[in-house]
Amino acid sequence: MKKRNRPKSSLYAVIMAGGQGTRFWPLSRRDRPKQFLKMFGPASLLQQTVNRLRGLIPKDKIYIVTYEKQVAETRKHVPQLSGKQILAEPVQRNTAAAIALAAHVLARQDPKAMMLVLPADHLIQYPAKFHQAVRRACRVASVEGNSVLLGIPPAHPETGFGYLKLSRRAAPGYGASVHRVEQFTEKPDLKKAKRFMASGRYAWNAGIFVWYASTFLANLRKHLPRTAKLLAAGEKHWGKRTRKSWLARTYPQLENISVDYGVMEKASRVYAVEAPIGWSDVGSWQAVYRQQKKDRAGSVLPAASIAFDSKGNYIAAEGKFVATIGVEDLVVVDTDDALLVCRRDRSEDVGKIVKELQKRKQTECL
Amino acid sequence: MKKRNRPKSSLYAVIMAGGQGTRFWPLSRRDRPKQFLKMFGPASLLQQTVNRLRGLIPKDKIYIVTYEKQVAETRKHVPQLSGKQILAEPVQRNTAAAIALAAHVLARQDPKAMMLVLPADHLIQYPAKFHQAVRRACRVASVEGNSVLLGIPPAHPETGFGYLKLSRRAAPGYGASVHRVEQFTEKPDLKKAKRFMASGRYAWNAGIFVWYASTFLANLRKHLPRTAKLLAAGEKHWGKRTRKSWLARTYPQLENISVDYGVMEKASRVYAVEAPIGWSDVGSWQAVYRQQKKDRAGSVLPAASIAFDSKGNYIAAEGKFVATIGVEDLVVVDTDDALLVCRRDRSEDVGKIVKELQKRKQTECL
Repeated sequence: MKKRNRPKSSLYAVIMAGGQGTRFWPLSRRDRPKQFLKMFGPASLLQQTVNRLRGLIPKDKIYIVTYEKQVAETRKHVPQLSGKQILAEPVQRNTAAAIALAAHVLARQDPKAMMLVLPADHLIQYPAKFHQAVRRACRVASVEGNSVLLGIPPAHPETGFGYLKLSRRAAPGYGASVHRVEQFTEKPDLKKAKRFMASGRYAWNAGIFVWYASTFLANLRKHLPRTAKLLAAGEKHWGKRTRKSWLARTYPQLENISVDYGVMEKASRVYAVEAPIGWSDVGSWQAVYRQQKKDRAGSVLPAASIAFDSKGNYIAAEGKFVATIGVEDLVVVDTDDALLVCRRDRSEDVGKIVKELQKRKQTECL
Repeated sequence: MKKRNRPKSSLYAVIMAGGQGTRFWPLSRRDRPKQFLKMFGPASLLQQTVNRLRGLIPKDKIYIVTYEKQVAETRKHVPQLSGKQILAEPVQRNTAAAIALAAHVLARQDPKAMMLVLPADHLIQYPAKFHQAVRRACRVASVEGNSVLLGIPPAHPETGFGYLKLSRRAAPGYGASVHRVEQFTEKPDLKKAKRFMASGRYAWNAGIFVWYASTFLANLRKHLPRTAKLLAAGEKHWGKRTRKSWLARTYPQLENISVDYGVMEKASRVYAVEAPIGWSDVGSWQAVYRQQKKDRAGSVLPAASIAFDSKGNYIAAEGKFVATIGVEDLVVVDTDDALLVCRRDRSEDVGKIVKELQKRKQTECL
């Protein structure tokens, strides 16, 4: 492989792999969240996320934050990473805590560590453009105090995402594709989302960040002082045998809040780099369907299926022969112990099945 | 159990269990035709057919004609019958040959044997009325030369059944519910079927017959002389070790024709007994759906399923948890190696799947 022009070697990846995976039920389960699924070829989403960093970040600088119970499975997916590169959360917390933990670890070992934070279970169609956007973000973030996000040009008026409102003019000195972020808006209604798109001043927040660990920790001290204090107080346990028990005691006390709400919305000097990278959070079966290669009838079916008068269906039934007659726009997902049959445009409601199962205490299917 | 007033003990049951089962794919397979399926409770359709004869015909007078390869499975379903009561067809033939074989067997052992011929895989809701209709049919059939069918009052203008055109007046001497059969009509178009219903002179042919074995054999000699001759020529092999090899040689040469086409349509003195017995041939998933108990949303689902905004679905997925969202009027049948997703009103087309599999030589799912 040709060596590309790598950014300064102080760039680390921090992959957020703490998800619970309710939206891909019945394929995703408590113990098998989305990042482990192989919905797009032979590599899991987590493996694809790691592979995508090739040529950008050396593998010994890739860290994964995941839930303790998923460490074993995570290591199976990325055997090329060493054990110390997998940071285990003793309980599941939101993104602020996970990033704070990673920032502590990195800042300790490398005071000039720059972090590329990214989700483990998203899809990016154009890796080269992704690298380009990250490199640009690194340049902006190399000014201490700057926080940078990748801003995805919205493809449709999506109501399920967070939006970044960008400054009218490009940020001076950083090039045309870099803007100040003036506002964060979570999940607008459709009317608002359409307005956002029409204005041309909004980007989707893909949850991909670049900053110095030190910059993040400074923001943390300011905006989530409790989390900052609790983690800082553990300094003496780092690298010692007491670290694990200290973390188990401390972690549940950290604020359970997203990094967007808890830190970014309050931070100053937040920038967005325009990133037309073919990003999708593949947040529902509908989104998976959209990303998949379809047959002539617009369906995604297992090989050797038979479909009569059917179109627009997404059917996953590993190893099974599938036949359809006269059905349209369905999502059918068949696993060993459960079967989902859903209208495709209702696949956002799959999480409700999981909630109902929890309510009924039918834990065997969770 | 209270002993009922049984008909003369010369009545034998001949259960036709030679079906191939393509219409219940993927649950029915080459080696697991419909009569073995347990779609209506813990007993298979075959078991229900045998159980339904209790109080009408003693178990030692119940015979089953089935395909050689299904003898072992048949015996598992009806262990109360002895081996000699299972007549094996060396190859699959139509009903005329199967009934002819049974008529030979019965006539040899009991010259006054009367046969109640009935399919192994139909459903009858009202067994007491069924018994009553059979007793009435026996009285009519006890006149040598009479052939009797049960005629089902049509419930809807079905295009998939055979119809019997009944004489305007009841047959003299047999009571109001017995008519001469003036004509056989196979599978009329919808317009015709509606006309049949409106006229009040037609009944569905349920494939349930009563006649003396001797009467049937006389008809056979007249209308299917080749079959009659071939079977008669084997007399010397009956009860001998050579019987099996003789049958294996002879059976493939018998005419491959239904008893309706081959014999009944041409026979004289054919009567129908009105039989409001709650009969269904359960000839498609749609028919199974109609016969099943439904939930409030008109669906048939496995226990403990979750259904949001769904109605009119038939979902069979043994041992699985099923969830549906926003879907209507579907048939979904999930087995170990295959999955069918079908619009309920298209379930007549399921046989096409089997044909297509045969064409593609995907034999593992047949």
